Amino acid sequence: MPSSLHVIGHQQPDTDTICSALAYARLKQAQGVDATPARAGEVNPETQFVLDRWDTESPSLLDDAAGEQLILVDHNEYSQAVSGAHDATIVEVVDHHRIGDIETSDPIYFRNEPVGSTATILTQLYEEANKTIDAQTAGLLLSGLLSDTVVLRSPTTTDQDRSIADHLADIAGVDIEKYGKELLQQKSKIGEKSPREMVLSDFKEFEFESHQVGIGQVETVEPEVVLEQREAVLAAMDDVATERNYTVFLLLVTDLLKEESTALIAGTQIDTVEDGLDTTFTEQEAFLPGVMSRKKQVVPPLEDAFN
Amino acid sequence: MPSSLHVIGHQQPDTDTICSALAYARLKQAQGVDATPARAGEVNPETQFVLDRWDTESPSLLDDAAGEQLILVDHNEYSQAVSGAHDATIVEVVDHHRIGDIETSDPIYFRNEPVGSTATILTQLYEEANKTIDAQTAGLLLSGLLSDTVVLRSPTTTDQDRSIADHLADIAGVDIEKYGKELLQQKSKIGEKSPREMVLSDFKEFEFESHQVGIGQVETVEPEVVLEQREAVLAAMDDVATERNYTVFLLLVTDLLKEESTALIAGTQIDTVEDGLDTTFTEQEAFLPGVMSRKKQVVPPLEDAFN
Ligand SMILES: [Mn+2]
Ligand SMILES: [Mn+2]
Repeated sequence: MPSSLHVIGHQQPDTDTICSALAYARLKQAQGVDATPARAGEVNPETQFVLDRWDTESPSLLDDAAGEQLILVDHNEYSQAVSGAHDATIVEVVDHHRIGDIETSDPIYFRNEPVGSTATILTQLYEEANKTIDAQTAGLLLSGLLSDTVVLRSPTTTDQDRSIADHLADIAGVDIEKYGKELLQQKSKIGEKSPREMVLSDFKEFEFESHQVGIGQVETVEPEVVLEQREAVLAAMDDVATERNYTVFLLLVTDLLKEESTALIAGTQIDTVEDGLDTTFTEQEAFLPGVMSRKKQVVPPLEDAFN
Repeated sequence: MPSSLHVIGHQQPDTDTICSALAYARLKQAQGVDATPARAGEVNPETQFVLDRWDTESPSLLDDAAGEQLILVDHNEYSQAVSGAHDATIVEVVDHHRIGDIETSDPIYFRNEPVGSTATILTQLYEEANKTIDAQTAGLLLSGLLSDTVVLRSPTTTDQDRSIADHLADIAGVDIEKYGKELLQQKSKIGEKSPREMVLSDFKEFEFESHQVGIGQVETVEPEVVLEQREAVLAAMDDVATERNYTVFLLLVTDLLKEESTALIAGTQIDTVEDGLDTTFTEQEAFLPGVMSRKKQVVPPLEDAFN
C-alpha cells in the first residue's frame, strides 16, 4: 500500500491541533497537494463544539502512522506524536512550542514561531501563498487561536496573534469577545468528567534528561469543581504516574478569570519541581499566582531544574 | 559580563554561512535588535573574494560561545556549531539542511526550508519584514545563493532560488552567469592547498547512530588537480580519521562542469557506505555520476545505511 500524506497534531488533541490540521490540509489541497487532515486521539468537548459551530467534519483518527508521511502541526516532539511516528516520514512541521527531538535525513520545511497558536502561523502561510481564507476556515483558525490564548489573555499572546485574530474574526463574521466567551464555557465543562478523564484531558508528556514527566492542565472558570475532588484527583494522578513510570505528574488547575493556577503533584522528585517553580508543595498542592501557560511558565523552568 | 547576541553559521564556514550571518545581523539591526555577525572559523578564499568584491568586513571570530545568545544560520546541529554552543542559548535558527539535534526549553523562531541556500530564505525574511535590501547586502546574499547552488546548477536548486537570484542580481547590478563564473574560479583554487587543507576545507561531521562520519567536498572545475595527488590525499584522510575516531571519512571530489563526483574513502565501514551510495569502492575510490550535493544525494542515503 503506498503511503499517504496526513496533516496531524498532537495526542490528546486540543482545538488548536484539530483546527490547524484541518486548515493546513485545506491549504495544501488548494496548492494541489493530496493531503488529508488526521487526529491522534479523541476530540474533546470544546473542539466538538467548534466543529459543530463551523459545520465541519472531524478529521479521521490515525491510530498507527508507521510507514506514512506526516506533516506535524502544533507539536514537534515524538513523545507527543501519534503512535508509529518514529517509523513515519516527517515531511513538514508547523508549530509554536519549544524545539523538540524531531530529526530528519532530508531538508524539510520546519516553521516554528514563538506566537500564541499554530493557527496564527497558518493564517500567515495562507497569506504568503496568496490563498484566500473562506469564512469556515477563518472560524476554525480563530477557534484554535482563541482557545490556545484563552481569548488573547494568556501571557503567550503576541501582537501578531491580536492582529491576526481581528482579521480572522472579520472574515468569519463573529465578535471575538462574544465568541470567545462561548468557547471558554465549553472549556469549563470539566465537572462532567471522572477524575481520571479530568487529569488526562489536556495532558502532555515530556522527557527531561532521563525522567518522564507528565503535565496536565485543567483550564476552567470554576477551579473549585476540580479542587473539591482533591483526594480522588490525586488518586487518579498516582495511578497514572505508577502505570506509566513517571518521575512526576503535575496537574495545573488554571483559573481563567483570576489568571492563576493551583498545582497538584504526584510522583517522587517533588523537590526538583519545587526548585524549578520556586514554590513549596504542602500536602501535594501549591499555589502559582500569575501562572496560566504550561508551555511558557512551567515547561522551561522544569526542564532546567531536571537538567 | 552580560551575554551578547551573535548571528553565526557553521564551522568551516562557506560563503552562504558568512554572507547569511552578515545579512541577517543587518536585518535584525534594521528591526532594532542589537545583533552582531560572527564566524566559527577561518574565512575561505572564495568568501574572502566575495567580501572584497562587496567591500564588506569579515564577521569577527567567536571562539567560545558558552554563555552567549546565538542565532544559528545555515546549520542546525551541534556537531557543526561553534564550540561552546551546547552551553549557549539558541534563540533562533534559519537554515536549509536536514533537521538536526537542536532542542530548546522555550519556543523560538525556527525556519528551515528545502531550498538551495540560507541566503534564499533570508531574502524572503527581508521581504516579509518589509525592509529594503541595499546593493551591498544583495551582492552578499546573491554570493551565498550562487555559491551553494553552484550558480543554480546543483540539484538542490529550486524555482524559488532562481527567481530570488534574479531579484538579487537586479539590486546588486551584476549578471548572474558572469559573476557566477568569477565565483566558480575562486572555488577552484584548490591546487594551492596542502592535502590536509584540501580534505578539510569544506568539511562536515555527522553522527549516524553511534558512528562519527566525516564528509568533505572539493568542488572544482579541475578535479585532476586533486586526484593526481591521490596517495597524499588518502594519507591525510587516514590521519584525520584516526585522530578524530571517525568510522568513515568520505571525500567527494566534485566536477562542477561535468556535474559528477569521484569519492575517496578512509575508515572501517566501507561496505556500509557502498550499500548507502549503491556503488563499489576499488582501491578506496568510486565514481558517482550525477552526484553534486552532499546534503541531498549523500547524507540521506548514508544516514539510512548506518541506521
Ligand atoms: Mn497550540
Ligand atoms: Mn548553505
